[in-house]
Amino acid sequence: MKTVKVHVAPFVSDEMKAAVESGGGAISDDPEAADAVVWTIPGQAEQLKELLEKSPARWVQLPFAGIEAFFEAGAITDERTWSCTKGVYGPATGEHALALMLGVARALHTHARDRKWAEAGFGRPERRLAGATVVIVGTGGIGAFIARALAPLEAQVIGVNRSGKALDGAARTVTVDRLSEVVGDADYLVVAAASTPETRHLVDAALLARMKPDAWIVNVARGPLIDTDALVTALEDGKIGGAALDVTDPEPLPEGHPLWTMDNVLITPHVANTWDMAVPELLALIERNVAAFAAGRPLEGLVDASAGY
Amino acid sequence: MKTVKVHVAPFVSDEMKAAVESGGGAISDDPEAADAVVWTIPGQAEQLKELLEKSPARWVQLPFAGIEAFFEAGAITDERTWSCTKGVYGPATGEHALALMLGVARALHTHARDRKWAEAGFGRPERRLAGATVVIVGTGGIGAFIARALAPLEAQVIGVNRSGKALDGAARTVTVDRLSEVVGDADYLVVAAASTPETRHLVDAALLARMKPDAWIVNVARGPLIDTDALVTALEDGKIGGAALDVTDPEPLPEGHPLWTMDNVLITPHVANTWDMAVPELLALIERNVAAFAAGRPLEGLVDASAGY
Repeated sequence: MKTVKVHVAPFVSDEMKAAVESGGGAISDDPEAADAVVWTIPGQAEQLKELLEKSPARWVQLPFAGIEAFFEAGAITDERTWSCTKGVYGPATGEHALALMLGVARALHTHARDRKWAEAGFGRPERRLAGATVVIVGTGGIGAFIARALAPLEAQVIGVNRSGKALDGAARTVTVDRLSEVVGDADYLVVAAASTPETRHLVDAALLARMKPDAWIVNVARGPLIDTDALVTALEDGKIGGAALDVTDPEPLPEGHPLWTMDNVLITPHVANTWDMAVPELLALIERNVAAFAAGRPLEGLVDASAGY
Repeated sequence: MKTVKVHVAPFVSDEMKAAVESGGGAISDDPEAADAVVWTIPGQAEQLKELLEKSPARWVQLPFAGIEAFFEAGAITDERTWSCTKGVYGPATGEHALALMLGVARALHTHARDRKWAEAGFGRPERRLAGATVVIVGTGGIGAFIARALAPLEAQVIGVNRSGKALDGAARTVTVDRLSEVVGDADYLVVAAASTPETRHLVDAALLARMKPDAWIVNVARGPLIDTDALVTALEDGKIGGAALDVTDPEPLPEGHPLWTMDNVLITPHVANTWDMAVPELLALIERNVAAFAAGRPLEGLVDASAGY
């Protein structure tokens, strides 16, 4: 079996070199002599495109699952095999979605801001997740993890995806064209789908209008899946209970944006899967995929160029 | 089978009457003619003691599991059978403990206070629960629920209890005299034990000194299990990572107390199991226990007068 020459850019660490070598590959400093390119930052798509123009690499590994910038730059073409980290960061990101759901259910966003003891008695805002209905849009690695984690919490899950293929642990799974039918059941609407031209503004004014007035939206996917202006209006008008957002549109959310000061909004700055959480998973994937590429086996996280993710 | 006459006090709702009757009992307005007393508020132990002095009731049902006030008042004696809600509220309270753990792991307490987008990159404070070690002190209904909920999150659980009886889902379970040996492994120390004279200040300066400097304490049990002054000192000195407290000592925590303004403290005002969450569970327990008492079957949640809970 021929040793795969792997060019790692734009930066390479000793850990990355070790991962390539553990997978049976060899580091190539010269992209023009490389069989494969591992791209190590989530952006700079134009720079990758330029690098590939002078490289015969047949396979490119991207370091994150949100790769819309690489599509937009025209870097991703059918001439090469592309893989990303689809599924790999599902547990980390799903864990954050669960933290947001439980956090707002238990009103941690308001308690964190409190500076005195609140009144006891009936009518407290804290809610249980048990018995709640959670609609999960996107049933890849993130959605699958959330459904698994919700099982012992005894929430009811409804999965939503393109194919209608059943989400494990869900009471039912429907195709995305039926989202507007099931969204009215949601106590929590979790957005965990890929960002593509088709999913842009999946959550718009019309969908928000169908939600329960005490339902929360949780977004751990990408900001553009939600129409931010429509969300702000829905929150201002009390049409939904609140929003817990790890991603926003625009992102970063600018200072002074109305979402920053709403009592029923919790914003985390795109930290569902931080670099520190991602690196060990990415290294392990690089090792597995280098070995698979050398052996001619299928790669993990193959990019579907026609679907855009 | 003789109909059990049940006196419900100090307040009785239609739902409570219905629960007694569904269990096959009859409401008795007169405590002097009652076979059983259902006490419906968590306090006023002296008032209950007075009521019982003129009642032949052989069984008393208390509405919460934290019943130390009734012991202290000398209301609980061996002359009658006492039951409380031990175990019944475990899922609600355990769910709150999980929310606190995930919440502080994901730094929701700081993000809720943010009014601008934080910097991305390496060294972010957010942590995964996966791979973390959670030491759970108390393996009753609360601890058992937490261990179940942590299984899909892939945290490692160490149980701590009086008997050493294995906690389901725990990697190991040790007796409470060995808490100081295992506390150094904890990324999260969850306090979920009954409050008794023996457990007062279970978490003291000596125990805190053995914890990891980035470990968090989560208390969903009772405030006096932790020595508050020692906790404040440990937090001020950076000896532990932080504290998420649903219960405090004193409680309510007075305005201006140093815990209110520490960045690495999250306080919720004893809402792990609110009245709104508790009522359905309490009604179902009343129905089951009235039926059991009438049939001479063992009651759920029997109070162990010698253990003090």
